[in-house]
Amino acid sequence: MHPLHQFSPAVYNWIGSTAATCTTISFLPQLIRVWRRKSARDISLLMFLFFSFGVACWLVYGIGIGSGPVTAANALTLVLAVAILVLKLRYDRTSPRSNADTAVSKATPIKVTPIK
Amino acid sequence: MHPLHQFSPAVYNWIGSTAATCTTISFLPQLIRVWRRKSARDISLLMFLFFSFGVACWLVYGIGIGSGPVTAANALTLVLAVAILVLKLRYDRTSPRSNADTAVSKATPIKVTPIK
Repeated sequence: MHPLHQFSPAVYNWIGSTAATCTTISFLPQLIRVWRRKSARDISLLMFLFFSFGVACWLVYGIGIGSGPVTAANALTLVLAVAILVLKLRYDRTSPRSNADTAVSKATPIKVTPIK
Repeated sequence: MHPLHQFSPAVYNWIGSTAATCTTISFLPQLIRVWRRKSARDISLLMFLFFSFGVACWLVYGIGIGSGPVTAANALTLVLAVAILVLKLRYDRTSPRSNADTAVSKATPIKVTPIK
């Protein structure tokens, strides 16, 4: 029995649409978080380089096979992913290194005194 | 003219495979970065909740339509995304707050003196 017979095609279309919506909009809270914190040290540059290139390929694929939903979802995801990538490159240059960085770097030892 | 006629279907299959490979493996460097730094403050919890749910839907969709590549790619992506999510939840509880957090929190003001 073909798996599609377990549910109607309409159910699978609905599941696919939910999947595309969730994976696309998920990058919006990440963009907002990086923008608010002005920090993206914990985010992997390599992840967003690979991911952006992959989504660009999905976009070409969507246009190529003439699929509106694939094209639209990946166009929006690409905009969000590239925006996060640009902010990461900007903040990594300007922001001070975080605890996680200084913990492994050869920083000058400092003494911290509470102000009375 | 149908867009597929611009290139052969084999070309679009190749572009689609490249896209799936890049978007899937992109989460591996992110997982490694979080694991090494023991920090995931800049990563959005909401992003990985939405993304993991979306990928789980893609997985059900892949199984449902009987697509091996969609099922395999999303199964691997789900494992990586959930692993990042679990590490974020763990490190956010145990690690000290980063510069970006303390900058907006009502922390006790401190004086930093270099040790001579």
